[in-house]
Amino acid sequence: MTQIDSHRRRGRPAGTSDTRDRILRSARDLFARDGTTNTSIRAIAAEAGVDPALVHHYFGTKAQLIATAIDIPIDPERVLTVLRATPVESLGHAVPALILPLWESDLGAHLKATLRAALAGDQQSIFAGFLREVVLTGIAPRIDEPPGSGIVRAEFAATQMLGVVMARYIFELQPFARVPIDQVIETIAPTLQRYLTGDIAAVTT
Amino acid sequence: MTQIDSHRRRGRPAGTSDTRDRILRSARDLFARDGTTNTSIRAIAAEAGVDPALVHHYFGTKAQLIATAIDIPIDPERVLTVLRATPVESLGHAVPALILPLWESDLGAHLKATLRAALAGDQQSIFAGFLREVVLTGIAPRIDEPPGSGIVRAEFAATQMLGVVMARYIFELQPFARVPIDQVIETIAPTLQRYLTGDIAAVTT
Repeated sequence: MTQIDSHRRRGRPAGTSDTRDRILRSARDLFARDGTTNTSIRAIAAEAGVDPALVHHYFGTKAQLIATAIDIPIDPERVLTVLRATPVESLGHAVPALILPLWESDLGAHLKATLRAALAGDQQSIFAGFLREVVLTGIAPRIDEPPGSGIVRAEFAATQMLGVVMARYIFELQPFARVPIDQVIETIAPTLQRYLTGDIAAVTT
Repeated sequence: MTQIDSHRRRGRPAGTSDTRDRILRSARDLFARDGTTNTSIRAIAAEAGVDPALVHHYFGTKAQLIATAIDIPIDPERVLTVLRATPVESLGHAVPALILPLWESDLGAHLKATLRAALAGDQQSIFAGFLREVVLTGIAPRIDEPPGSGIVRAEFAATQMLGVVMARYIFELQPFARVPIDQVIETIAPTLQRYLTGDIAAVTT
């Protein structure tokens, strides 16, 4: 699995770096024009004039490529690897316990800047595409009960996560933003678990 | 109770309208500089060189004034009047049933534009101040169990509402944005009710 961080790119010959940049530009152009869902790795490779294998070589999975395209400083595959190893009945706690501490860490400022840029510019659809890619490939198939409901279940969980992130790190609601993060995780975990595996009106009615 | 809408302002003599505009400019300046919490109606009146009663005459309550200042096309007092008449054990359903249909109505485009502007510009703190004012005056005192927990409870409910609004109207997550709004309301109502009146880690631990 390709790891995305800035260290890995150091020391590459200039010519290779140009190719990488060209692929990234092509990806950004196509994501913006056609949306992430309708843009394949193959189409990005064709646009950049390279072999699809080279896209994967530089950027890993599609989720990783989207993360790089909109400057999300977290490798989605690392998050997904942990979630795939988590029993579905524990996901409600595992998801916020994995993601919210990242926002409280040294990466927090970078994450806030990325989210603010996505909100201020025209990148909302690419950000939504990122969420969709992570949800589709990592969570939805495991909670697809009844069949076909997995995406909606995961998206309801995403609304609660998104709301906490917005309230705490963008709007900085007080006193909410000062509640210890462990208490926030414990408080929203049952909500996420119900959306992921419980009886919810959006699925059962 | 003063009703805020554009009809009410029609036909005013120009001089009076100038005074109103001056008060509004003073309010926006002070909200931006000192925050909404630290800005009193009295301070706004002093800044505009008018009597505080005139501020109330033109704009109503502080929540109404903030709504006008950031161009929220909904009278918060009308929402609060309904919520005050709702038993606390029904608020989890009443809050989304009251607010989400507004976003699906003809006002939706205006609400989206206002939220986008708040996110893109430097108005996040005024928007947060609006939420705080509505929560403080309308909901928190009624769910303050144990004493002092009402604001945090209401803010947790606000995170779920904010997340639904962001996912559905800003990021337009699919298929979530197509789920019938009644099903969204039914699905999140138990979450809101638990945050408002249930045992939650952020309050009980």
